[in-house]
Amino acid sequence: MKIITISREFGSGGRELGKRLANIMNFDYYDSEIIAAVAKKSGLDPNYVEDKLNNHGWHNFPITFRSTIGSATYMQSSKVALLLEQKRVIEEIATLGKNCIIVGRNADVILKKYNPFNIFVYAAVEAKIKRCTERASESKQLTEKDLVQKMKEIDKIRSQTRDILSGSDWGQRDAYHLTINTSDWDIKDLAPAVAAFANSWFGRKS
Amino acid sequence: MKIITISREFGSGGRELGKRLANIMNFDYYDSEIIAAVAKKSGLDPNYVEDKLNNHGWHNFPITFRSTIGSATYMQSSKVALLLEQKRVIEEIATLGKNCIIVGRNADVILKKYNPFNIFVYAAVEAKIKRCTERASESKQLTEKDLVQKMKEIDKIRSQTRDILSGSDWGQRDAYHLTINTSDWDIKDLAPAVAAFANSWFGRKS
Repeated sequence: MKIITISREFGSGGRELGKRLANIMNFDYYDSEIIAAVAKKSGLDPNYVEDKLNNHGWHNFPITFRSTIGSATYMQSSKVALLLEQKRVIEEIATLGKNCIIVGRNADVILKKYNPFNIFVYAAVEAKIKRCTERASESKQLTEKDLVQKMKEIDKIRSQTRDILSGSDWGQRDAYHLTINTSDWDIKDLAPAVAAFANSWFGRKS
Repeated sequence: MKIITISREFGSGGRELGKRLANIMNFDYYDSEIIAAVAKKSGLDPNYVEDKLNNHGWHNFPITFRSTIGSATYMQSSKVALLLEQKRVIEEIATLGKNCIIVGRNADVILKKYNPFNIFVYAAVEAKIKRCTERASESKQLTEKDLVQKMKEIDKIRSQTRDILSGSDWGQRDAYHLTINTSDWDIKDLAPAVAAFANSWFGRKS
């Protein structure tokens, strides 16, 4: 089984890269399916789950809680419970034994024992602004200043969530096999290049 | 003209990657030739030049000197003069107009206007120790502890030199197009994968 995980700065094109890679490599692709599964299990609305997991920070999160995160008894509807359920869904995906690509959600940490190929994508702020305003309808309604603020907030939440889940730093290169600057790329051109690289990695002798 | 620059942590296989890439892509490869040119110009022994540039730190280097680095009047045999001469040699290489690969020496910063494809390679400490003790004869004589110490020192000098030359951080991903973890790779297998990726980058539409 081959697993590719893609961690990404908000606006750097990680999701599009994941979809295109899955298409080129004929891998399963997991993104909103994970949210849907978490929502179903918890009996909550998928939009609520997505918003809670991705857009809400960890203000007032007790540091000491880290040591007890293994226990899911904390309020069922809380961010932590959703995060643990999301982790369980991701682990379940891996047990299917099929080649797949998972974008975000710290899948690289959660599925470490399967030795996934871990990618991190990022871009210069200007490139991310351009991508967001061209692609995402909700970003079009934001001023550039607000968009940059939103990028920072979401990346901060991603970083905090990773720290809480694994104690490791989000975006730190040691965790990844390949770190790609998407600034000068059309993702459509980048995807086949990454697919070829990933195939070399999976096919390497060592 | 296509230029590839490779910045690298000591022991991560950057030099071998550069040589193999040059071979696969039929690019000129510059490494010790740069030292030889600097030595010739300055009338110094190449071994002295190499040692001075790569193995000597910037202790006691006055911070205020940064603003006057453009002036080469500082002691002719000093590290700064050698660094400036090295910069000039690298600029001269680019004026030849031939596809080339330059390893280290902040060529990515020096040749920025030519829009080179900039790679950074790194590896886990254990992988670097393994590579060094297997390949480099001088590393075999060091204890593991001394080797790790040497790695740290050389990487620190590279970082300081970059800061002095460009005011930018060495190893910070923003400066590179592709950042590769060589830990799980045999460079022989990695090189064709990187060559294909670089070709995609040079051939992209945007």
